[in-house]
Formats: sequence, C-alpha cells, structure tokens
Amino acid sequence: MQEKKKIIINGAGLVGSLLGIYLKKRGHEVAIYERRPDMRLSGMAAGRSINLALSDRGLKALAKVGIADEIKKIAIPMHGRQIHNADGTEVFQPYGEDGQYINSVSRSELNMRLMDLAETNGIKINFNERCSTIDWQKNEVTYIHEDSGKNQTVSADIIFGADGAFSASRLQHQLQSDRFEYLQTYINCGYKELTIPANSENEYAMKVNALHIWPRKEYMLIALPNTDKSFTCTLFFPFEGSHSFDALKTKDDVNTFFNKHFTDAVKLMPTLTDDFFNNPTSSLVTIKCFPWVRDHSFALIGDAAHAMVPFFGQGMNCGFEDCSVLDEIMEKSGDDWDKIFAEYQSVRKPDGDAIADLAVENFIEMRAKTADPKFLMQKKLEAKLHEKFPEKWIPAYSLVTFSPDVRYSVAKKRGMLQENIMQEVMSIPGIEQKWDSLEMEHLIMEKWSLLKASLLNEE
Amino acid sequence: MQEKKKIIINGAGLVGSLLGIYLKKRGHEVAIYERRPDMRLSGMAAGRSINLALSDRGLKALAKVGIADEIKKIAIPMHGRQIHNADGTEVFQPYGEDGQYINSVSRSELNMRLMDLAETNGIKINFNERCSTIDWQKNEVTYIHEDSGKNQTVSADIIFGADGAFSASRLQHQLQSDRFEYLQTYINCGYKELTIPANSENEYAMKVNALHIWPRKEYMLIALPNTDKSFTCTLFFPFEGSHSFDALKTKDDVNTFFNKHFTDAVKLMPTLTDDFFNNPTSSLVTIKCFPWVRDHSFALIGDAAHAMVPFFGQGMNCGFEDCSVLDEIMEKSGDDWDKIFAEYQSVRKPDGDAIADLAVENFIEMRAKTADPKFLMQKKLEAKLHEKFPEKWIPAYSLVTFSPDVRYSVAKKRGMLQENIMQEVMSIPGIEQKWDSLEMEHLIMEKWSLLKASLLNEE
Repeated sequence: MQEKKKIIINGAGLVGSLLGIYLKKRGHEVAIYERRPDMRLSGMAAGRSINLALSDRGLKALAKVGIADEIKKIAIPMHGRQIHNADGTEVFQPYGEDGQYINSVSRSELNMRLMDLAETNGIKINFNERCSTIDWQKNEVTYIHEDSGKNQTVSADIIFGADGAFSASRLQHQLQSDRFEYLQTYINCGYKELTIPANSENEYAMKVNALHIWPRKEYMLIALPNTDKSFTCTLFFPFEGSHSFDALKTKDDVNTFFNKHFTDAVKLMPTLTDDFFNNPTSSLVTIKCFPWVRDHSFALIGDAAHAMVPFFGQGMNCGFEDCSVLDEIMEKSGDDWDKIFAEYQSVRKPDGDAIADLAVENFIEMRAKTADPKFLMQKKLEAKLHEKFPEKWIPAYSLVTFSPDVRYSVAKKRGMLQENIMQEVMSIPGIEQKWDSLEMEHLIMEKWSLLKASLLNEE
Repeated sequence: MQEKKKIIINGAGLVGSLLGIYLKKRGHEVAIYERRPDMRLSGMAAGRSINLALSDRGLKALAKVGIADEIKKIAIPMHGRQIHNADGTEVFQPYGEDGQYINSVSRSELNMRLMDLAETNGIKINFNERCSTIDWQKNEVTYIHEDSGKNQTVSADIIFGADGAFSASRLQHQLQSDRFEYLQTYINCGYKELTIPANSENEYAMKVNALHIWPRKEYMLIALPNTDKSFTCTLFFPFEGSHSFDALKTKDDVNTFFNKHFTDAVKLMPTLTDDFFNNPTSSLVTIKCFPWVRDHSFALIGDAAHAMVPFFGQGMNCGFEDCSVLDEIMEKSGDDWDKIFAEYQSVRKPDGDAIADLAVENFIEMRAKTADPKFLMQKKLEAKLHEKFPEKWIPAYSLVTFSPDVRYSVAKKRGMLQENIMQEVMSIPGIEQKWDSLEMEHLIMEKWSLLKASLLNEE
C-alpha cells in the first residue's frame, strides 16, 4: 500500500479502466472521467476497431490484478496466420511454438468487463464528461458534461491521461509546456471494417483458430473470429491511387474489385457492398511525444502517450504493460511520485517508440511479404534455428508477442540483428538448396554470437 | 485585380502585415486580427528576438510591393562574419562576393513600419483579439478580446493563419482535420539576449558591418548591430549539462564563464549579469506540418506553416517569400482559389521543409566549424571555385541568401552535392598543400558535372 492519493484518470477505455484497478489496489482514491456515454447502457461502440489481439504482455498485466482468467473466457485463440493467396491457395503459418497463440477479443466486450471490474473495485466512472482544460498550477481538471453542457472542476493529487490517441489531457499538457516534442504521422492506408457472418449451419465460415490474411502487396484484408461465429474483416487500403478507397465509388466497383482480388472471401460476405458504404473509412496514426509526465502530478499512458498502427497487434498490450510496469515501479519507489514518474517515463518511452516503429514495419511484412516464397523459407529457417537454440534465436514476432519479459526496445534491437543476418544469408547464391544445411546453421550462429556481443555491450 | 474577396488574416506580425499589403493590392477586402496589443502604442516587444537578418529573398518580396527602399533605411549592412576565436584572434569571413551583404534590422521597428504601411493601404488591424475557434463549415472565426473578454465572430471568404510558430489557426485546423501530419521538435540549446551598448564616445564598440560570432563548439555567442550603435548579443547555449543555462546559477558563475570563454566580449558588456538574469531563456523549435491549406478557404503562411531555428537567418525571409510566391500564383491563376492554394502548397511545402532542415544544419556550422582551419580552407576553395565558375559553383550559403531565384529545395540539393564533393576532396592526403592547384580544380569540376547531371534529371 502507498500513502493514499486522490487520483483522476481521464478515459475509461481499456487502459484507463485497467489502470484504475491497479491504482485502487494500491490504496488510492480513484475516479475516472470518460467523454463517451456508458457503452454498457447505450450500446455504443467503444472505439473504431471491433476486435483486438490480446497477447502475453496484455495477459500478464491482467493476471497481475487477477483478471486474466475472467477475460480469457471471452477470447478466441489464434495459433497462426492463415494466408489466402491471390491464386486461391492457402497456407497456415504458426505464430510460434506449439501452445503459443494470440487471442481475438471484442474491444467493446473487453472494455465493458474492465469497467465492471473497476466499479466492483470501488471506482466511480463519470461518463459524458469531456476534459476541457487542466490547470497545472492547481492540479485541477475542468470537465464539460456532453449533454447538459454544465462545467465542473475537480482537483486531484495526481492526474493520468489515458484518453487515447487524440488525448485531450495531452493537448492541455502540450499547450502549457515548453520544449514538448511531438510527432503525429499517418500511413497512406486507411481501414474499413467488413463482416463474414456465421454460415448457414450457424458455424464459423472459415478456420476459427487463426488470423486470416489476404496479402496483396499494396493492400490487404484480414479477418479475426468473434464469439458469435462471425469474423470481423478489416480492409487496409490506400486512400488514393489506382487501387484505393478513392477509386471504389459504386457498388459495382466494390464487387468487381473484391471478386477479382479476394475471390474466396467475397463468397462469404453477403453484406459486402452495404458494409462498404455504411461503415466509415478510418485513418491510421502514429504518435510520439515527450515528456510523458509532469513532475509528480501527471502522466500519459496508453495510446495517449504512444499511439501506433495496429499491425503488430500491440497497441492495447503495450498500454496494459504500461500499467503493470508502472505498478512494479510503485512497488519499488514507495511514495516518491517524482521518482515513480521519472522512472516510468525513462523505461517506457523507448519501449513505446520501439513498438510503434515495429508496428509500421510489420505492415510491410503482413501485406507484402507473407505471400513471398523466399520470406516463407526465411521464416522456416528461423523457426528451425529457434527450435535448436531456443534461448538464442527467437524470431522478432515471438520476442514481441510471446516474451513479455523482454522489453520492446530490446526485442526491436534483437530483431534487427537477426534480420540483418537473415538478409545476408538469404542473398547467398544457391541458398534455396542449402538453407537447412549444417553449414548455414554454423555460419548463422557464428554471426549471431559476434553481433550479440556488441548488442549486449550497448544495452 | 482579382474578384474581391473578404479576407481575414490572423496575426499582424511581419508576415501577416506584408501579406495584408499584397492582398489589398490585388483588390481584396482585408482585415487583420492580432492577439497582442498595438506595439506602436504599448512599446511592447514584437516577439522574442530583437533583431533579424533581412536578405535578398525578403528584400525581393518587399520590393514587389514597393517598400524595400523604405525598409532599407532602418537596416545595417553586414558583409560577413567576424569570428572571435577562443584564443583572442579574430578573422573576417565575407558572406559572398563584393557588394553582397545581409541586413541587421530591428524586429519591432520593421514590424511597426509594416503595420503602418498596411494601414496606409487601407487595412484595419484589430488588436488584442485572440483567435479562439474557427468554424470551418461556416468559415467563421471567433475572437476573444484579451482585455474585455468579449467574443466576436467574423465570417470571411478566405482565412489566413499568419500567427506564428504556435499558431492558434493551425491548432484549429489540426484539431478538425483527419490525417494532419505534424512535427514539433526542439534543439538542445536555448537562447538568451544580452547587450553591448555604444562605447564611451557613443560609437559602435566593434566593427559595425559584420555579424559577430564567438563559436565555441557546443555553444556560441553572436552579435548584430542596431541603429542606436549598440549590438544585440544572443547566447545559444545548452539547457542542461556542464556548460549550460542550468549550470550558471549565480552572477559569479556567469562572470567566471564569460571571462573564460568570451574574454573580449565581456569587457564590452557592462550589464551582463543583470541582462543574464532579467532576460528570459527561450527555446528553439522546428515545426513541420501538412496540409497547409483547406480547399479554397484557408492557408497557413510564415512560421505558422514552417517554424525554423534562426541559424540561417531565413525565418522572416522565407515568410516574406511565401507572400511573393503566393502573389505570383494569384497572378497566374486568377480567381480559382482551389488552384491557387493547391499550387501554393505544392511549391512552398518542400521549400519550407528544406530551409528548416538547412537551418538546423547551419547551427553546427556556425557554432563548431567556423573556428576550424580545415573548414576555412574549404570555404576559401569554394570562394575561388565560385569566382572562376560563377554560374556553376555557388556556395550553399550564397544560394540561400543571395540567389532568390533558386528555390530553397534546389539550394539544399545543390548544396549537398557540392558538400559531398568537398568532403571527398578534403579527405585527399596532402590536400593542405594542393587545395588551390589546377589539378584539384579539374577534379572537382569533373565530379560537379557528373553529379549535376543526375541532380538535373531528378528536378
């Protein structure tokens, strides 16, 4: 237990709700303020994406406050990528070793459970309260009620900004900071959600325990399973250009395009054209900023600190890990909140940046490389190396997804090291014939030892 | 003349005032709204920096509306850099050819003249009006009067954001745009203004027609002449570290530091310690964003679009050039404002980014390299090449400062090309003995022709 503080959290999303539970368990007085209405009453969507991939880092953070099992009940394991090639063939690529998997969960269902659990723990969530200004001298937040328009000003010892990529807390912080570093940047693709309903026997229309991908180089379609036996599909697609949202203007355009490029999927999508024109096209942002904290009184957390594109499935997991890392630091540092926040920032800022960078890089891998035979050979070689040297060679995807004790920033460095070696090896003439030879294995592991030593020196 | 539009300009700074004059001359109804009080009445400073270097691009833009001569009256020519080395020696480095110079002008005096000229041209400047919100559907700006707190909402056909690095117009634009690219980033140094007054005979205490620099690698002091025979000095200095603002806590600290590192300057600075502790320490930001425009109804201009650090002396000049380039485009495109703004953005965005990058690079050159003998040899060699091949080899500084017909983005590319050649040549063994030989000249110009061809292909 820490000395009891009055704490405000802006945002009752996934991270804000979980953070509340963590802080309450440490003995604090916690109140959450959320701009949106209570989704449990209104049935409104929690955000724009419908399902998410919960993996080991997120589960570890949920487990630490004893709610991982509760959440696992609403999750569907996905053991690998089911690749749907343009020629109609399919191939399954496991994500890791046997028994390693990620979990498809509904964002709104997960968020509602977390809100319930926050309230069960004695936290009051105030809905429809828009954070309008923060007075950093007085540590007071002014909220405007979205329906009544009424203002209220609330003071606190500590304020957390867990209010997402377009955080109102962060904007207040930015506008009243000197030397605030800030970057927001978008990729050239947007996304649109579509659906594959349960089939006529009320069963999943495709293999359930996989994340389905239709990689098409400049764009891709993915599908994640839902508990109601439907799949939510997401089309990642350029905004402009010959194949783009801009170019698909009519239902005919959409049908023609999908029939040509997603031939197997389109048969499972009876509401395709309606979905396409009714559902919004959303953009994909990366946000980096610094500092995340103000002395002992304010910290950004989750997307508010480090928004990332979804291609590593780590946005939520990273936000949950922010909470568990912060908790570890609180455990160590007692009541010295200057120290707690300084260490939280110094540990998490490089990790947030690292996973944001990896997420952009993974977009290229997912849409382009998963269909490339040489890439698949490389993945097989890496899997073999991992099997023979499980402590040494761990594929970057596994480091990020299944190794929650390895920091994102370290995973990124180790991944780059391995990728550099692989690039060298894959360019050896005749590699197709000898990739799984003992000669190659020795060569690779020699390079690995050499480079690893210099990496360790750096850390 | 164009079809008369109702135009609002946010900001009566240097760029806002000049832009007003340009637009008024094209026949528009122009009103300017400025957050600050009228500096002509209040005697308040126009901004943070006291004097500026006006050079050919800025003068060209002033000349186009017939006010260059008027402004030149308050400017002091600076023909080169007067370097004050750490060992007490001095050396003069001309900026360009004979007759090429930049001009030291007082920011507030220049701003007041431009406001006068705007009013003479029939523009109303509304002071103390803070831009609070912009309604992009109605094209209406709401201002709050800084004294009375009274709101007023003004509608316009076209709104310009000329309100500086921390533009309120840009924030409204950003908050209501999807896919807005934004970067703000600071260098590790801040600045503080100090003064060298006129000497006891009421004369300049140093050579008047030069920009004085005390380069000290990690930091530097500069001084620009004022019309009252004083110099304004600016210390560019790290915020933190062993030599930093943070480390100079007492008057003794300041005296000791200046006596050691700026021995000749400190003798001319009787109010040094008072200035040091009374004047603010300011930060140095680079801002890049996109888009700069909204269809036919809004455009950012000057620092609001592209804030840069001051080390190329181009912030104001670039903002003035924005106005003259916009005017050229208006001349060509008549009343099609969608087209005018699209072209303005497509031309000026790469140029704004280029000069912002060059400005950061020049910081390194100014504080570190101007005291390096090899760098001075390189500058001499480049000056010689320019003399022999005046159309081919133009030093980057001259391209930016004295070649207003060469775009910043082209100046940057040509500068990089030349710098790459110089780096190669300077690393030739024994170059000290043969740098001005015919052999080297042939080698350099051969490389130049080769690389220039590929550069031209790219453009």
